Amino acid sequence: MQLDHVGIAVPKLSDAIDRWRPLVGAPDGPAEEVPSNRVRVAFVSVGGTHVELLEPLDPASPVAQFLERRGPGVHHLAFTVPNVDAALAEVRRRGDRVVDAQGRPGARGRRVGFAHPSAFGGVLVEFVEQP
Amino acid sequence: MQLDHVGIAVPKLSDAIDRWRPLVGAPDGPAEEVPSNRVRVAFVSVGGTHVELLEPLDPASPVAQFLERRGPGVHHLAFTVPNVDAALAEVRRRGDRVVDAQGRPGARGRRVGFAHPSAFGGVLVEFVEQP
Repeated sequence: MQLDHVGIAVPKLSDAIDRWRPLVGAPDGPAEEVPSNRVRVAFVSVGGTHVELLEPLDPASPVAQFLERRGPGVHHLAFTVPNVDAALAEVRRRGDRVVDAQGRPGARGRRVGFAHPSAFGGVLVEFVEQP
Repeated sequence: MQLDHVGIAVPKLSDAIDRWRPLVGAPDGPAEEVPSNRVRVAFVSVGGTHVELLEPLDPASPVAQFLERRGPGVHHLAFTVPNVDAALAEVRRRGDRVVDAQGRPGARGRRVGFAHPSAFGGVLVEFVEQP
């Protein structure tokens, strides 16, 4: 079990990269659009994990709604799992809710799926399948 | 630069430990009171970083105020630095605000200090001095 990344919702990716650079350094590569989540993201390696900066692509993006409701800040925690479908099924088996019934394509070509925040005490948890 | 831990505000530590155990496992040791922050905390190792579950000791705790305002969820991100005072001074040098002007005793016998959330785009950042 690893913490793959911490997802941070930001209004503007370029501003956020400048803001975080003195602490965590430059992004690992160019920004990537993730159409399934309506976001543009940049990953920054921090030791064995990453910070993911998430900018909404449009007002319908869940991240735009998060920004409107709570303002910029930590949006989700992502953990690596051997199998996303099995991790989501395990959450449901415990009687908890999921956002995604099954895995789907996420950033960096990885298969991902989200539990519902109520499943982890108010924290939105993403499962990321090990490559 | 390492992500030392992700701090998660919880109303009740024992419930939170039960909730998170299926995903991240059991805490590294018994819970610890941190009087300077008015919290009781448990750390869980997750790969090279940790999840810190924070329960307020009383209603005057900043974590109690956070829970009242935003509900349970990610409270702060903590990064290891060689020197907490220097990290806080660097934030101020950039014209940003800090919660702690200087380092002070934190959990696990480590010296810690918090920047103001406005310094990192809405994210409360804690500096933890390398042991």
